[in-house]
Amino acid sequence: MENVKIIEIKKSVFEDNDRAADALRGELKKKGVFLLNLMSSPGSGKTTTLIQTINRLKDKLRIAVMEADIDSDVDAIKIKEATGVESIQLHTGGMCHLDAEMTEQGLTAVIGGQPSEVSSQPSAFDLVILENVGNLVCPAEFDTGAVKNAMILSVPEGHDKPLKYPLMFSICDVVVINKIDVLPYFDFDMEKCKEYIHMRNPKATVIPICAKTGEGVEAFANWLLKEVARWKE
Amino acid sequence: MENVKIIEIKKSVFEDNDRAADALRGELKKKGVFLLNLMSSPGSGKTTTLIQTINRLKDKLRIAVMEADIDSDVDAIKIKEATGVESIQLHTGGMCHLDAEMTEQGLTAVIGGQPSEVSSQPSAFDLVILENVGNLVCPAEFDTGAVKNAMILSVPEGHDKPLKYPLMFSICDVVVINKIDVLPYFDFDMEKCKEYIHMRNPKATVIPICAKTGEGVEAFANWLLKEVARWKE
Repeated sequence: MENVKIIEIKKSVFEDNDRAADALRGELKKKGVFLLNLMSSPGSGKTTTLIQTINRLKDKLRIAVMEADIDSDVDAIKIKEATGVESIQLHTGGMCHLDAEMTEQGLTAVIGGQPSEVSSQPSAFDLVILENVGNLVCPAEFDTGAVKNAMILSVPEGHDKPLKYPLMFSICDVVVINKIDVLPYFDFDMEKCKEYIHMRNPKATVIPICAKTGEGVEAFANWLLKEVARWKE
Repeated sequence: MENVKIIEIKKSVFEDNDRAADALRGELKKKGVFLLNLMSSPGSGKTTTLIQTINRLKDKLRIAVMEADIDSDVDAIKIKEATGVESIQLHTGGMCHLDAEMTEQGLTAVIGGQPSEVSSQPSAFDLVILENVGNLVCPAEFDTGAVKNAMILSVPEGHDKPLKYPLMFSICDVVVINKIDVLPYFDFDMEKCKEYIHMRNPKATVIPICAKTGEGVEAFANWLLKEVARWKE
């Protein structure tokens, strides 16, 4: 089993998280690094989706992954073993979300130095993906400094989730609907789900996939490829 | 559609939540009210499980439900329509969990007066169930003052969740494993799951159910019935 770097991140002292997030995004823009913040409930398939997506993109982009978790490191190891890309584990010490300053601690460990110090140097990565803590509430309240927010909603969770977790759906640029292979066994109405998502965020892109079989993953990979290219323009 | 009472709960000012929780439990003991704190991820089937359970218990116990949610009231209405028992909605105003003082605000609305003021009077309810916010992280960190903690883990979430959310599993007296009807379609190892749960909490009772069909719900209802009787001794 491979070893991965484990970073114990500290609670942020920044009072103004929005300002810190904007500053971080500014530095990432200068360096040409696209940061994706990926959120979901526990068990929606974030790690499997990432593996499938990264394996479709790793020849086109230089990718690194930051896996945030309360205290295990199984996800970072799984990503590294299955894709070969750089993967580190961020331990949140019980915290239920990441803010911009905590995200920057992770980025510093991944891309080296303070983003502000190295902004003139070319970055080692085009795309860094932050797998946030599995939680539909708290991560939605803190801007991590990511360029785009993505979330995964899995079919077994139900099509009504945009009604119950409004903030999460309103801040996400793309909603991946995973586990479509089990649609026949659940009362999940895809059209209603899209309608509820667009009630929260009319501009959200909705991409149904099955991470287990790979169905639909190409569409998510293409969305990412296009967004990364736009960010680097 | 029935109307339900909606309580906008305020953030607690209590610094010592554990002390507040113990005090609340003491008052509930005097009144003979059993408070169950029910937790889970979003979409694990808390509300459906509650409806099935309450319909098996409502002739034996006087039951009330407090549905905590960020801002919708669909669950409280659903419970009231499907079971006829008293059901109120607690709006947490974006908060990701309830603490003891917030729980007491809800209880006051349900059973009337301050618990301390009415401890000499007989209570109108034997069992009050708090459906906590859908989240495996934050609710585990705050003692609500409940007599017992229960959680629902659904099959699609995966049998590895006790490894990734250790605190939640360590504080729960009973773990209900829901959606066993879809076991054939997921890589869910029931024996491994039980093993991981007992790693976190050797005393936890594990009850596999299918809330949709009612399979196994009797066992959970019986567990509750026994615990309520023990509390009232």
